[in-house]
Amino acid sequence: MEKKIPQATAKRLPLYYRFILNLHNQGKTRVSSKELSDAVKVDSATIRRDFSYFGALGKKGYGYNVEYLLQFFKDTLEQDAITEVALIGVGNLGTALINYNFSQSNNTKIVMAFDRSKRTAKTENGNIPIYSIEQLEEKLNGVEVAILTVPAAAAQDIADRLIDCGIKGIVNFTPARLTIPDDVRIHHIDLSVELQSFIYFLKNYPMNE
Amino acid sequence: MEKKIPQATAKRLPLYYRFILNLHNQGKTRVSSKELSDAVKVDSATIRRDFSYFGALGKKGYGYNVEYLLQFFKDTLEQDAITEVALIGVGNLGTALINYNFSQSNNTKIVMAFDRSKRTAKTENGNIPIYSIEQLEEKLNGVEVAILTVPAAAAQDIADRLIDCGIKGIVNFTPARLTIPDDVRIHHIDLSVELQSFIYFLKNYPMNE
Repeated sequence: MEKKIPQATAKRLPLYYRFILNLHNQGKTRVSSKELSDAVKVDSATIRRDFSYFGALGKKGYGYNVEYLLQFFKDTLEQDAITEVALIGVGNLGTALINYNFSQSNNTKIVMAFDRSKRTAKTENGNIPIYSIEQLEEKLNGVEVAILTVPAAAAQDIADRLIDCGIKGIVNFTPARLTIPDDVRIHHIDLSVELQSFIYFLKNYPMNE
Repeated sequence: MEKKIPQATAKRLPLYYRFILNLHNQGKTRVSSKELSDAVKVDSATIRRDFSYFGALGKKGYGYNVEYLLQFFKDTLEQDAITEVALIGVGNLGTALINYNFSQSNNTKIVMAFDRSKRTAKTENGNIPIYSIEQLEEKLNGVEVAILTVPAAAAQDIADRLIDCGIKGIVNFTPARLTIPDDVRIHHIDLSVELQSFIYFLKNYPMNE
């Protein structure tokens, strides 16, 4: 496992992988950085720099070898090792995430969900059990990643319980900023902040400057 | 309007603003970078560097002036100018965004939604009209920002129509990578990529290294 990939590059790995997999499924054997750039909307220079970290050497007039890239991404993203994820809070956002098309290029799987009420989500893939939040400690057994889509006021309490259960990573969709131990990784996706900062950029960093 | 704020700093503006507003509402007049750091989970050094761009000078043993910061953020984020947003695609994710608590610290407002089917979202704030997607050109009049929560296969077609209507910014929640003119800004929030890259970081960049 190559650990020296810069974080900004690593963030683009799943995106690259998805498109390379598509190309491979279409029977393509090579791809230029220009074609990739058009498809994933990342500029060619960035793609060439990123791919140099992957040991992928594009050749002028030939491009990159799809097979090599596919194998690299599969190995790097450990596509054969499915990571099980628990989702806490089956409201609209939680239901959307359960139904979200985590495609074949994604090696994560929501395997269970918890909710305060006894609601059953209208899941399109109906094979995910939804337990009462009271059963968290009993049912979570072994799952190390959780998605938090509960009301903000409940977030810290739930996070504490998850961490007591051995959760190592939390994707936090609530606006609450959580206090967690140093050895637990957290990723905030705050949709309100995302929208507001997008509009700030729209107003203050015009595209044609 | 100060335009020299680095983009990474600008992304944190709405977050800082929300917490400073909370402090102000609690009657606090000053705050240390340590307190802010504990609240927003951004390290103190980053906060001090960010705030230096805001012209906010923290004083040792005193901290930052809450009133000054509040006014700065209000002005910079143009809190008095509400930005109207249209949401396209009222499935679970769309409904979640309509119901999302875009709090008083947020100056964006979803004012209308469109959907292919005649479904009416179970909106908690029931004052948002939901139109048929066929009425897009007729109803969008003047709105410049759109949130895209339609199926990926429909995304490019809808984006083209939005741009013909004069949309200047698109927040794209679909996995589709859209082809848009240079003068339209787009922000991708691909929940599948977010989850997968989070897990890659979890496995490959341990917190305690």
